[in-house]
This record gives sequence, structure tokens and C-alpha cells, in this order.
Amino acid sequence: MTMSEIGIGARERELRERAARVVPSGMYGHMTARDYAPSMPQYLSGGEGSRIWDADGREYIDYMCSWGPMVLGHRHRVVEAAAEAQRRQGDCLSGPGPVLVELAELFVATVPHADWAIFAKNGTDVTTLGLMVARAHTRKRAILAAAGSYHGAAPWCNPWPRGLLAEDKAHISYFRYDDLESAREAAAAVGDDLAGVIVTPFRHDAGHDQEEVDPAFARGLRALCDEAGAALILDDVRAGLRLDPGGSWEPIGVRPDLSAWGKAIGNGYPLSALVGSDTFRRAAERIFTTGSFWFSSVSMAASVATITTVQAERAHETMARIGRLLRDGIASQAAEHGVAIKQTGPVQLPNLSFDGDEHFERALVFADECARRGVFVHPSHNWFLSSAHTEDDVDRTLEAMGHAFARVSAELGTV
Amino acid sequence: MTMSEIGIGARERELRERAARVVPSGMYGHMTARDYAPSMPQYLSGGEGSRIWDADGREYIDYMCSWGPMVLGHRHRVVEAAAEAQRRQGDCLSGPGPVLVELAELFVATVPHADWAIFAKNGTDVTTLGLMVARAHTRKRAILAAAGSYHGAAPWCNPWPRGLLAEDKAHISYFRYDDLESAREAAAAVGDDLAGVIVTPFRHDAGHDQEEVDPAFARGLRALCDEAGAALILDDVRAGLRLDPGGSWEPIGVRPDLSAWGKAIGNGYPLSALVGSDTFRRAAERIFTTGSFWFSSVSMAASVATITTVQAERAHETMARIGRLLRDGIASQAAEHGVAIKQTGPVQLPNLSFDGDEHFERALVFADECARRGVFVHPSHNWFLSSAHTEDDVDRTLEAMGHAFARVSAELGTV
Repeated sequence: MTMSEIGIGARERELRERAARVVPSGMYGHMTARDYAPSMPQYLSGGEGSRIWDADGREYIDYMCSWGPMVLGHRHRVVEAAAEAQRRQGDCLSGPGPVLVELAELFVATVPHADWAIFAKNGTDVTTLGLMVARAHTRKRAILAAAGSYHGAAPWCNPWPRGLLAEDKAHISYFRYDDLESAREAAAAVGDDLAGVIVTPFRHDAGHDQEEVDPAFARGLRALCDEAGAALILDDVRAGLRLDPGGSWEPIGVRPDLSAWGKAIGNGYPLSALVGSDTFRRAAERIFTTGSFWFSSVSMAASVATITTVQAERAHETMARIGRLLRDGIASQAAEHGVAIKQTGPVQLPNLSFDGDEHFERALVFADECARRGVFVHPSHNWFLSSAHTEDDVDRTLEAMGHAFARVSAELGTV
Repeated sequence: MTMSEIGIGARERELRERAARVVPSGMYGHMTARDYAPSMPQYLSGGEGSRIWDADGREYIDYMCSWGPMVLGHRHRVVEAAAEAQRRQGDCLSGPGPVLVELAELFVATVPHADWAIFAKNGTDVTTLGLMVARAHTRKRAILAAAGSYHGAAPWCNPWPRGLLAEDKAHISYFRYDDLESAREAAAAVGDDLAGVIVTPFRHDAGHDQEEVDPAFARGLRALCDEAGAALILDDVRAGLRLDPGGSWEPIGVRPDLSAWGKAIGNGYPLSALVGSDTFRRAAERIFTTGSFWFSSVSMAASVATITTVQAERAHETMARIGRLLRDGIASQAAEHGVAIKQTGPVQLPNLSFDGDEHFERALVFADECARRGVFVHPSHNWFLSSAHTEDDVDRTLEAMGHAFARVSAELGTV
């Protein structure tokens, strides 16, 4: 297929050509169009609510929500007003603003296991900080993590080997998600050197079907950490605020010692947070961490507005309701077209895969047809709902997806 | 001294008390007031040009410039207008905006050694990325750095030991800044395993006098890297845009392979960049790096405006001129009061120290009196000029500093 045949617009084509000269691979990181279907745009020029526009002005219903951040939808009125009010006061100053204290208090009031908060920019900043606090508290070294879980792009957790050292992953050992016995074995293998366990609230490894957490597994990790005096670190960067404002394991009643937050907490404004219990406060005081923009106030004001709005509007419940509609609709359509699929994970962070689609051929055709019809979904990464998504959005989405399933069936057969 | 005697305002006092409950140590990182003089405020509520206001509404001439970012002064008209225009289009979307390409092109046009750019959020993100690219290119491990240089707070460069592993600093070895022989020895010690050398454009270690770079040292590091096929990585996070828009070693004619930028490039909007030469492009393509907010457009639009304004207004020359006035005025006043001081480093990033002041007792009294008189300077970290600082600001500053030198002399004697 040539560029024009696949329907990429003139502005998109021009931007890709220019980027190929001045950006490695044309684009780095998780938003690279190299992982997209051919008709999906690399460049976006705007968003409002559940909609985004590409550089050529085409509109899409957005099911990536900026890969998590837009929990209330793009340019949410309350969040933007709070950010603008703070901006008139001050943003990046020579010290923090009063809103830092307000936001820390809000986290402590909202997240039952939190007695304190530290704010940063990247999710990776705060997962890394979680390890540092765990090690400073225990004066031990070993961290257990689930094989394949994504905790960021720092050397200790970077999923690619290139540019890294063997030592970058020293004292990290692995268990299988939802397999408590494997975690116990990993803990036994490090003897009395266990500093902490880091775990996502459910299994959301890119390119794999998602897996809900087994509550017995979560409780088992809690017990394992308690026995060892180690930190249970919940990596809530991806899921935080979409399942429960108090933390994604609140519904199953398992409280971590530390939790890492990012993405959705500022509804698009750059912010992450590590929160923790009093037991780990002294350790959090003893480590050194900082960043040039970690004290800027606008993102914090946006976060106060985001968290209070999620709670006031029960945004997580809206996402659950709309996500359920979408999931049921997709299931019906797939059945109608005789295409075998799996839908996994919480409905607020939907994941669709096609049976026997190891190389994502079906997923790519599906995402391609969706893009052509104004629906932006990733072929191999989970999607994200926002509370701005409506029943009407779901209807329009299912209309497009019906054609997408038909094309999958026509081009690649039903199984 | 009690809080009320040292003149901290009621709002500041209230915020400190609240923060003590919900923020480790009351405040973490480089902006903690624990390192300040007693009359300096922890919390700031606003800024405009060269001025900032604390939470109680007191005004200060700001010589920290948000610890670097505000190179054109707070709320610079052109930068704010560019950010606002971009904000109306879109900021954090499900993909990058066209401005990412524009900014990468601007870096390539502005920085002579740059053929490509990758954007991130923290300075630490891009110094770490520099190491990864160097290692991916050379397939070697060893990195040389100057002992005591600050390259960020990631485990490989974090200046404090707590919460870290011995392995976090594996394959990092150290030389003495401006001591080429020590760098050659460090290179010899790693044999044929040299991946790169990371170095700041001048020595700006916190708590120490600054040291200008010896051009022969810089040329020697360049030659050392060329001989080994290793990457010369310039950490221009702190100084970038204040000495030369093309990079801080342009004036001495030494070009790195990779350079790390942050702080000033967005005039307060959160952004960092790694730029590099074509030789290292393939390596930059082979590594994995990303972050949730690395593709947001508002910071990039602010950066385009900042870099073009610095160039159009020759902002670095304004800072050099005003910085020279300040330095000369401080020298005169110190001499007048018989107080022995050192002023070191480029005048755009001033550093003042007092002779025989190992524990910063004089520096603290000086900074305290400055704060009481409306001048915000750090006792033990270099300061930053912006192009918004005027001759009138310097006059008012020197008026305050005259009283500060007098108090130092009265309380602690002249030497």
C-alpha cells in the first residue's frame, strides 16, 4: 500500500517526512505510529471531551485518552479552569506553591493507605522512588516484580536490553502474575534480603491479554511483605483513578505500603506521585530525590480538580458503565461476524485481542478500519475510557467496529 | 530564634505546619527550605519578570529563576502567548503534535552538533538517556564522570547513598574536573570498555566554588572520546541557553556528540531534550525510552518561543551584562565592608562564597538579610540570572546586599 492509498493526509505525510530527518526513527516511545495500523495518524492537533483531531483535521472518538491521562476527557472544563486560575498566580517558581500542600492533603484524605505524598513528573520517577524508599526502610536490596509487567523505562525496569547493563537489574527477581507460589519461591530465593514487592493492580502487559488480579494473590503478597518487613508497592500509574479513587486494590481490600500514581491524576497535566504509610515516612525523608519541574503548581492545581471531580462525579462508575456497554457491544458484533475474540481486564481499560493473532494481523486490520471510520484504538495496547465517553459515542464506535469486524472476516477469515 | 522573630509570615507558618504532616521532612528535593536561611520563604505564590512573591505577599528580586528555568523571566509575554495558543489547540493528546517536529528542527538548526532530538521531562531523563545511547552505540559499558558533578537524581548519579545499591553506579568511574590527566587515567583503567564521558560545561557542584572549564581539558576529553570511539556527553541541563544558544561549549569550540538540555529550554514549562549527532542516531533508534507526558505540545510550543526569543533578543548577552554589573557591585561592597569573598563561574550563573565559611554560617546570615530586604538568593547553591533582570534590579539588590555584608561583618567578623 502506498501512503495515499492508506488515506494518510497531506499534513501527516509532510510531518512524517520532516520528522524522519530530526527525530530518531521518526518517533520514539510508546506513541510511535510504527506500532499503529497504517491509517492511524502519528500527529494529533487537538482534543475535546472524547474526541481528538489529527493534523489534517479528521475527527476520531479517542479510546487511548492520551494513553491514560485524560480520565475526565480532553479539556475538561473544571480542570482547565483550575489550571488557568493557578496559572494566573504562578506555576514554575523558585519554590513550591501552597497547592502542593493542598494536593498532598487531598491524597492523604483520598487514599486510605497514604499518610504522605511526594510529587514528580514521570510514572517512572515514582516507581523508582518506591524501590528507593523500600530499600532505605528495610536496608535490604531485593525487589520482586512480575515478569513482563511494565513499571517504566528507567534502566531497572526498561523492557528492552539495548543501552543497558546487566547490573541495571541487579537484585530484581521475578514471579508470575497471579501465581502466589512463584512469588513465595522468589522471596525464598532472596532469603532475608527482601526489600519489597512491586506489582500492578491487574496484569496489563502490552501485547498480552489482561488478567484480573486474584484477590488471594494480592492478599498473599501482603502477607509475604508483612512477614519479611518488606514494602508492598502498588504500581497504580496506569490504572489509578479509573477503578477506585482510593487506589485500585481498595475494591479487594488489600492495602499497599507505597503506591505510585501518574497519568490520570492531572487529567493531562504532567504529574506523578508516590504516596506511603507512616511506617515508611522516615525512609522517604532519608533518600534524595528531586527534579527541575517537580514543584510547579499548575499541574498540582489540575490534579486537585481532577481528583475532586472524579470523586464528585463518580467518574470511575461512569467509565465502568460505558465500558460495559462497549464491551457487550463488541462481543455481540464479533459473534455476529463470527470473529473469535477475547476482551480482558477491567472495562474502564479495555483490551481486545483476536484468537490466533500472534502477530496482530487481525488487530491491525481492525484498528485500521476503525481509524478510517473515526475511531482511534491501538492494535496491541489496552485502551482507556474517560468519563466524557457517552452512550452515543459507544453507538458510533460500534457502528465503525461492525465494519472493522466485517473487514477482518473478509480479509483474514473468521478464525 | 522563634518563627515570629525571624519574620516568617502567618501563611508561610501555617503551610509549613500542614506540610510537616503530609510531606516527608516537610519538603523534599532541591527546593527544601531546610537548606535556606531562616527568613527565606518555602512557599511562593507568584512571579513576574525578575520578581517573585511569597505566600504572604512579600516581593523579592528572584536570583534563583526557579533554579534555572526562567531564562527570560517569569511569565514572559512571548512564551506565555505561544503556550496559550498551543493550549487552545491541544496539549496532552493520544499522540505528539506537529510542534514536536518544529522543535526538533529548531534544535538541529540552533545547536551545531545536533542532527536529531528526543524530548522528555526531567533533566535526569536525558542525562540517563545519554548514557544509554552511548552504551548502545559502543556496545561498551564504562562511563567517566567528574567526581562531585551533579547529573540528576537517578540511581546511577544520585548524590546520596540511601535507598541505592552498589550496583546502581556500576561502570561509572570518576575523574577530577579540569584535570585531564585524571580523566586519561580513568579511561586507561577501563581499558577498551569506554562507552562515554559525561561532563558539565563548567564545574558547578552545589556547595562548592564554581570553576570555569579549561579549554585544553575540554579538547582533551574530545580527543579521548575520539580515540576510543566513545561518546562525549555534555550535560547542559543547568547552564544551557545562558552561555550560548548553540551549547555551552560553543564559545570554546568543543562539540560534544550528545548533549542534555532541560531547565531553561521551556522558560518554566516542563521539558528536557537529548540531542545528538548522526553518528549516534542509530543507537538512539535502538533503545527504548518514553514517558507519559513526553509528547505534550504546550511545553514544546513554549520551548520554540523561548529558544527563538533568546536568540532574537540575545538574552544570554543581556544576562552576561547584568551579571557582570552584579558581580562588580558585590565585589565593591564586600571590599567596602572588609568581608573576604569569592565569586566564581560565569556571571550568568553567579556563585558567591565567603572565605573560611565551611559551614555556610556567613552565607546563611547574608542570604537571611537579603531575604528580609526583598532579595531571594540561596546560601550554598549557584544563582541564576534572567534577561528580565535590569540595572535597576541590580541597584536595589546591591542596596540590600550592602546591609547583608554589614550584618555578616557585625555578627561574624570580617574573615
